Amino acid sequence: MPRKEGPKISRRAWITTTSGVIAAGLVRSQSDAIKLVAQEVPAADPTKVPGRLVSELGRRASAEQPKRLLRAQELSSSSRTPLADLMGTITPSDLHFERHHGGIPDIKFEDHELLVHGMVDRPMVFKMSDLMRYPQVSKVYFLECSGNGGGVYSQTRMPTEVTVQAMDGLLSTSEWTGVPVSTILREVGVRRGASWILAEGGDAAVLSRSVPLDKVMDDSLLAYGQNGERIRPEQGYPVRLFLPGYEGNANVKWLRRIEVTDRPTHTREETSKYTDPLGDGTIRQFSLMMDAKSVITFPSYPYVLPERGWWEIQGLAWSGRGRISKVEVSTDAGRSWVEAALQGPVLPKSTVRFRHLFEWRGRETIILSRATDETGYVQPTVQQLWEARGPATSYHQNHQRAWKIAAGGEVTFGLGDMV
Amino acid sequence: MPRKEGPKISRRAWITTTSGVIAAGLVRSQSDAIKLVAQEVPAADPTKVPGRLVSELGRRASAEQPKRLLRAQELSSSSRTPLADLMGTITPSDLHFERHHGGIPDIKFEDHELLVHGMVDRPMVFKMSDLMRYPQVSKVYFLECSGNGGGVYSQTRMPTEVTVQAMDGLLSTSEWTGVPVSTILREVGVRRGASWILAEGGDAAVLSRSVPLDKVMDDSLLAYGQNGERIRPEQGYPVRLFLPGYEGNANVKWLRRIEVTDRPTHTREETSKYTDPLGDGTIRQFSLMMDAKSVITFPSYPYVLPERGWWEIQGLAWSGRGRISKVEVSTDAGRSWVEAALQGPVLPKSTVRFRHLFEWRGRETIILSRATDETGYVQPTVQQLWEARGPATSYHQNHQRAWKIAAGGEVTFGLGDMV
Repeated sequence: MPRKEGPKISRRAWITTTSGVIAAGLVRSQSDAIKLVAQEVPAADPTKVPGRLVSELGRRASAEQPKRLLRAQELSSSSRTPLADLMGTITPSDLHFERHHGGIPDIKFEDHELLVHGMVDRPMVFKMSDLMRYPQVSKVYFLECSGNGGGVYSQTRMPTEVTVQAMDGLLSTSEWTGVPVSTILREVGVRRGASWILAEGGDAAVLSRSVPLDKVMDDSLLAYGQNGERIRPEQGYPVRLFLPGYEGNANVKWLRRIEVTDRPTHTREETSKYTDPLGDGTIRQFSLMMDAKSVITFPSYPYVLPERGWWEIQGLAWSGRGRISKVEVSTDAGRSWVEAALQGPVLPKSTVRFRHLFEWRGRETIILSRATDETGYVQPTVQQLWEARGPATSYHQNHQRAWKIAAGGEVTFGLGDMV
Repeated sequence: MPRKEGPKISRRAWITTTSGVIAAGLVRSQSDAIKLVAQEVPAADPTKVPGRLVSELGRRASAEQPKRLLRAQELSSSSRTPLADLMGTITPSDLHFERHHGGIPDIKFEDHELLVHGMVDRPMVFKMSDLMRYPQVSKVYFLECSGNGGGVYSQTRMPTEVTVQAMDGLLSTSEWTGVPVSTILREVGVRRGASWILAEGGDAAVLSRSVPLDKVMDDSLLAYGQNGERIRPEQGYPVRLFLPGYEGNANVKWLRRIEVTDRPTHTREETSKYTDPLGDGTIRQFSLMMDAKSVITFPSYPYVLPERGWWEIQGLAWSGRGRISKVEVSTDAGRSWVEAALQGPVLPKSTVRFRHLFEWRGRETIILSRATDETGYVQPTVQQLWEARGPATSYHQNHQRAWKIAAGGEVTFGLGDMV
């Protein structure tokens, strides 16, 4: 491991020498050294004053208030996870992304019922207390909206002032708890010839999706727990379908009905929406798998590197197909690549944090990452993706992301320079 | 897997037949079927009303408000995690246990400084922005107060109405992020002959502990992140010492000073407190390692099993020495034991959830669990612990916990029946 440069900015130096002009010029920076400018009155010595006592719930420090980025148009709304503010892989539940088509319904735990019917021997209605008596599973999985990144990348003229949150914040990771759907389907008895299910939500959109029975019987959950606690209303309280590695929209929230079928139902969300127009005039339907992807979260816009020296490039990588096998990082616009360190344990269908120490010598450059999963799939370049899929789709935009570091340290979205 | 009994309590039946007398008789039960009694007015169909839109932070359902159990005496205070309400292993950060000796100080991120000195070549002061530039590590670890369970078990007359939260709620699990202490000690250069450190907190108690240098250089962190976000004030914001597997008290919060020494400093918290009087009149000091332990979280007091049939016994197991290798469960007061299923991945120095399907036939019985870790250490019985350590200590009470299930389904703390 290269030895990084030691601390060079003395706090005293910043407080005594920084003028208002310099502070204004660095207003986009998140550097803590620079924040010190506003810190003029010395705080009381905390060892000389009694601290506050315990309370029923812990709370964040007043200066640490991460927020989601909101987009709301009547009943269609979304919130994006502040990926650049987070560490590790777990997303705090109140910062998990959301995407709603009919708003967040108010459902009582005791009232909720799940009907399982169709090509089954014994149609049944399950209350939550019934579902919670079955043997339980807890696993850490990522969840990503298939529209993640689409809003930025599908534009012909690429913007440069884009945060990771705005670009790829429809991605979060949680420890999900629930009962395997396979357990419930064995309880009702699936009939011969069945090959799909229809999953229907209890929200105002009655959001419905078809899912192959093989996937449902493999590793899918009726999830009622998230990061230790009961799932929150925004995530489908009291129960959602959880399909590890599949696009977010198919993970139907507020699940009230499963119909076992012998074909896909072709609902609105898999015909007019959540399909991928290809370059040849045909359309790709049921593109449920989230392909391998990675994104650098540090440094990213609007961070400004305050000095030359060693910096730890960090980011997240994930694949719906299983484990990430490697993440490579380029610090010279894609001319050369080196393998980043992966923070273990590397779990299947979960995010993994990658890290790479980089000595920035104060020159303009472009940094990129590319993920490879255990099936050998490699995260494509934007050119490869557009050649394969054409420019008309905004779903499944998993190509390599890039950031440009200017000579002054300013970091901006840099894909424009690659195309 | 045995087929569990299907849902037998129809919601309609409960609403129409349950009288006030029956409801009162079951007031301690957490059964969801029983909660239905209070649900008389049918809720509006959530598919027929628009839901609420997104907000900057997600929130729990109004009916789901887990709380910590508080004990506060002037500046000495604690809060206990509601273990029986949680699933999986991750503890939501606002439900992590706390134990403070001088209250929670109010420290500004930008003001905080860590002095590293003593037997080093280059004494240095680190600001938080300095610490955060070093290569980062994120790992899931448990944290447990060495007094956990002591308040209950050290009494000669055992209480029977005790929750898991009251008994063992000084235990939580998080994904911790920080810089290895070894990185910082290499930066300052540890001198020959050094063998301990003194860690000092910046709270009103100036809580200070000695830690062997070997442990510090092995896997200890200067932790500034917890479950994805910056560590909260209750957990040591902006930075705490984190010693995987060691007793909570030594994981000094609000860390402001590390002194490298050639011997332990013998502070108040390792002489008059946090030592174990043994039966022979001597005292065990620096008992920092948290030995293997397990606790059944379901069923536990005050739950009442509402009917005979298959129930999934669940709990948590952990060891400061590494991985849990097995957890055994007895459903006949310790006469026979069967190996429980462990929810993978089983991580070292973290909690693991164990599960065992149990057919309760409506007879009184006692259920227990015992954990074994990868070093071969087996969680002792209470008799074994008291023989080895005498009855005078309330620290490191890691012996087997038991619950009695009465013929009526009432679950109470059952250790008294074993002694």
